[in-house]
Amino acid sequence: MINIFLRLGHEASGQVVKIGKNVKNLKPGDRVAIEPGVPCKNCCYCKEGKYNLCPDIFFCATPPDDGNLCRYYCHAADFCYKLPDNMSYEEGAIMEPLSVGVHACRRGNVQVGSVVLILGAGPIGLVTLLTAKAFGASKVIITDLVDDRLKVAKHFGADYIMKIEKNMSEKDIVSKIGEILGEAPNVSLDCTGVEICVRVALNVTKTGGTVVLVGMGKDEQTVPLTGALIREIDIKGIFRYCNDYPIAIELVRSGKVNVNPLITHRFKMEDTCKAFKTAITGEGNPIKIMIYPNRSSL
Amino acid sequence: MINIFLRLGHEASGQVVKIGKNVKNLKPGDRVAIEPGVPCKNCCYCKEGKYNLCPDIFFCATPPDDGNLCRYYCHAADFCYKLPDNMSYEEGAIMEPLSVGVHACRRGNVQVGSVVLILGAGPIGLVTLLTAKAFGASKVIITDLVDDRLKVAKHFGADYIMKIEKNMSEKDIVSKIGEILGEAPNVSLDCTGVEICVRVALNVTKTGGTVVLVGMGKDEQTVPLTGALIREIDIKGIFRYCNDYPIAIELVRSGKVNVNPLITHRFKMEDTCKAFKTAITGEGNPIKIMIYPNRSSL
Amino acid sequence: MINIFLRLGHEASGQVVKIGKNVKNLKPGDRVAIEPGVPCKNCCYCKEGKYNLCPDIFFCATPPDDGNLCRYYCHAADFCYKLPDNMSYEEGAIMEPLSVGVHACRRGNVQVGSVVLILGAGPIGLVTLLTAKAFGASKVIITDLVDDRLKVAKHFGADYIMKIEKNMSEKDIVSKIGEILGEAPNVSLDCTGVEICVRVALNVTKTGGTVVLVGMGKDEQTVPLTGALIREIDIKGIFRYCNDYPIAIELVRSGKVNVNPLITHRFKMEDTCKAFKTAITGEGNPIKIMIYPNRSSL
Amino acid sequence: MINIFLRLGHEASGQVVKIGKNVKNLKPGDRVAIEPGVPCKNCCYCKEGKYNLCPDIFFCATPPDDGNLCRYYCHAADFCYKLPDNMSYEEGAIMEPLSVGVHACRRGNVQVGSVVLILGAGPIGLVTLLTAKAFGASKVIITDLVDDRLKVAKHFGADYIMKIEKNMSEKDIVSKIGEILGEAPNVSLDCTGVEICVRVALNVTKTGGTVVLVGMGKDEQTVPLTGALIREIDIKGIFRYCNDYPIAIELVRSGKVNVNPLITHRFKMEDTCKAFKTAITGEGNPIKIMIYPNRSSL
Repeated sequence: MINIFLRLGHEASGQVVKIGKNVKNLKPGDRVAIEPGVPCKNCCYCKEGKYNLCPDIFFCATPPDDGNLCRYYCHAADFCYKLPDNMSYEEGAIMEPLSVGVHACRRGNVQVGSVVLILGAGPIGLVTLLTAKAFGASKVIITDLVDDRLKVAKHFGADYIMKIEKNMSEKDIVSKIGEILGEAPNVSLDCTGVEICVRVALNVTKTGGTVVLVGMGKDEQTVPLTGALIREIDIKGIFRYCNDYPIAIELVRSGKVNVNPLITHRFKMEDTCKAFKTAITGEGNPIKIMIYPNRSSL
Repeated sequence: MINIFLRLGHEASGQVVKIGKNVKNLKPGDRVAIEPGVPCKNCCYCKEGKYNLCPDIFFCATPPDDGNLCRYYCHAADFCYKLPDNMSYEEGAIMEPLSVGVHACRRGNVQVGSVVLILGAGPIGLVTLLTAKAFGASKVIITDLVDDRLKVAKHFGADYIMKIEKNMSEKDIVSKIGEILGEAPNVSLDCTGVEICVRVALNVTKTGGTVVLVGMGKDEQTVPLTGALIREIDIKGIFRYCNDYPIAIELVRSGKVNVNPLITHRFKMEDTCKAFKTAITGEGNPIKIMIYPNRSSL
Repeated sequence: MINIFLRLGHEASGQVVKIGKNVKNLKPGDRVAIEPGVPCKNCCYCKEGKYNLCPDIFFCATPPDDGNLCRYYCHAADFCYKLPDNMSYEEGAIMEPLSVGVHACRRGNVQVGSVVLILGAGPIGLVTLLTAKAFGASKVIITDLVDDRLKVAKHFGADYIMKIEKNMSEKDIVSKIGEILGEAPNVSLDCTGVEICVRVALNVTKTGGTVVLVGMGKDEQTVPLTGALIREIDIKGIFRYCNDYPIAIELVRSGKVNVNPLITHRFKMEDTCKAFKTAITGEGNPIKIMIYPNRSSL
Repeated sequence: MINIFLRLGHEASGQVVKIGKNVKNLKPGDRVAIEPGVPCKNCCYCKEGKYNLCPDIFFCATPPDDGNLCRYYCHAADFCYKLPDNMSYEEGAIMEPLSVGVHACRRGNVQVGSVVLILGAGPIGLVTLLTAKAFGASKVIITDLVDDRLKVAKHFGADYIMKIEKNMSEKDIVSKIGEILGEAPNVSLDCTGVEICVRVALNVTKTGGTVVLVGMGKDEQTVPLTGALIREIDIKGIFRYCNDYPIAIELVRSGKVNVNPLITHRFKMEDTCKAFKTAITGEGNPIKIMIYPNRSSL
């Protein structure tokens, strides 16, 4: 059952005002990005370095845990990452979705030489695109139903964009991807969760390659499983991120990734309702919307 | 199109009678197990050590390639593996299905401490069971619809056997597996290809674990994909075997695995039709049937 | 500087008498093996699942941390592992050195098919031998200077034992190992720390193999480094253990490993001085000596 | 013993003039980079994807195999890689040393976030530097004795350069590297083969990190082995390259790496002696010298 008085917010950055007596990695005044999950640190997943799978993890804005859309917020110091001087608070907040892209690309082992297909050019598709290029992918093709999103993706570094037309069959999509790339992708990342996209990924990926399902779709999916598996395509999912914040920060610090164009709108805390309305209506084509709890003006 | 005059046979062993002038690993008189695929050795898969994925592989009894159910057969020397003195020709022939079990367990990373579920106690389920135990799995539970098969599996070393009753729902099966094991399996290997088994595997496997689909089922499957993937369960298929013959041979040589009980029937070559009839009718509960091309009596 | 009033003891098991209010994995009366290190749980090593490398780890009997050779001892619950019913307290205490063997074999990737050389048949050599065999190593050869130790090793499952004679040169040792095995080992584990043994390991290991230095020798060693490295032999060290206790326990629970013959002497706590004298003098050929803090008689 | 009539040359590119009847990946007129080793394709190393370790590999200009510094040269088609249209023959020839850098960085697992130390700014140090940056290394520091080389390295993208002064002790070097980086490198690649550099690498590398020895030094080295190994630093060597040419080509094709500044001199084939003299005397600070077998003018 969901607590209807839950505080929202899980993509956040801020300034340290006070630290616990055992904290050594931070001091008041430090600017930090906040990783919103804090695991139990005692279970087998935590001990083995897969803390995102910890069953007892605290996670901002995931019931029953409150989020961090507030003026003062207390968080485990080791999940607050000091921002380099050349990074802004806004970039700090964007480390959350970027870490999803980083986790997806690490699970898919994207590297120099990878030929990558990304299905879906929404926010998660875009951070996955940014990461894939920064990880050295040779070619990245990204697909979407919406022209405007593909334009943004092109601007974000996609080597190829491909519009999925309403009347295209699964087979059409598969063959067009092959045609554009001139070869099969060896890593496909689905950022839609839509069944036809999962199907396309399984069919189009190179023998021996990897399909990562980043988007969460409906649970039950009818997919051409056997055809993919006898070609030893590994199918992997992701759950949030794990040891990915430091890499995400490094991508931005070093200039390998520029997340600023993702941020399209800014609101004061008093205007939080307007911010949510913008997200819901899509007015002004928002990608990421920032809310500033502690500023009198923007 | 299938050549109807194709020679069958891909699980074979034999004695070397003649060698090519560049062959160094073998000499006439050597007893060998024959790995039935010979890859092109030039493509990226061959160069990277995944020769089972080679698109130009020759493979016995896979159209248009003839098999090796014959008196004299010529094969690439490096895919003939010398049998240790303590191994019989029959054991040599069984290295083929055993290599499937070895490949499956390697793909699933079965090791000391693994809690393993095997769905299906047919020949492939049995070789997977034998391998999983030899690889050090802590607990192996194996399921089937048929009591007799489960009895064999018990005899082959299964820690737990579980009969799937006709009236059991998917949920029933999942909960009974958990009940018997007292925990979730971290590696599940489906050796049936049947949709409900794939579904059970995805649902019952431990968060962060691996599901290996060994059995080839129908291509289209409706499965609870998202639920498994957000728990970061990796789904893998297998295609034959690759660098697995030496391990399979070692398992038998060292006594870790005893494949002899798999061999239930023996025929002379003249009686090949009887052998096939036995396989088809299932009379006498055959598991593996041997045909001897070069013996006047058995 | 070493605190001369440090309490000793880091290989221990015991019964839970009291638990903290948040402890869920244990209850009073449980019998446990105690992993003697408790890491900080906050640093990058802890988060990445390499907690043995945590710079702030608490470790029993490592200055300034007291050990657990005492009647009542308080320890982090998640580093106490419940003993299966078929395991004794003595076996529980032996999980500490066995975990070193487990860690070494995992670092060396010992598996079915491995041909293993272990240099040194002292306690660490023996637990490494036990683990290597349990992990499925095909052949294990173990060397030592002392006949008695080799006899014990033979009894513990070594396929081959080899006495190093005083007058043998490095080259002699290398060639004799090859002669006995009939091939080069692909994993060599040095459990001596002695320079000539490290040298032998680097020279004798198969191209592409792994050398694990388990024994801690003098820091400066003169070794044939280049010859080993251009054959892409990986050289690895180990530091204690990490996520190895559960595997060690499983090895004993399942009967894959029998550690009881390692335990040669037993003392009451009142006779601790005698126990240490036995260790120092070597009288009665001790391997592992148990001290019982809580028994009036043995 | 070295055959004194051996033809030299192992870094080459060229145009296909004729193909064998089974060759499908190439046609006359194609421009190719030539990987100079052709393995046996039959041994366990070849089958497992580690063909660089094949004991029977043919390798250009490695006795008794002739090299390819000649007008017409015949080579295995699958070890000739088609050059993309935007790559020159010169870049094709440089794929050989670049592949060494690629192999070294893959062995060291250099990736986004890596903090990298490269010892030595000669040609191999430079290609390793280029690769490390292209693989996403966060910070790369490179050391050398010679100012001019360091200037080149700076130009090639080193984040930090550090001159080793003659009077610096090992300890001085270690502490200065730490000072410049502000942290320990987690991957150190020695491209000198000099003992003091190996020693520095072992001492300065971060706990849990990797040291790759790229440069071939004298066989016997006196090194602080134990100190490095109990910090679980893995020590790896490299031997040439394996499946690295496609990645090297991709690095140049995509513009991630610019190898042209490495090429400092060009000669016609008739002037081969002058080319070698330039290499030997170092006149004009040569890095890489090209010899054109088939051009009347340059």
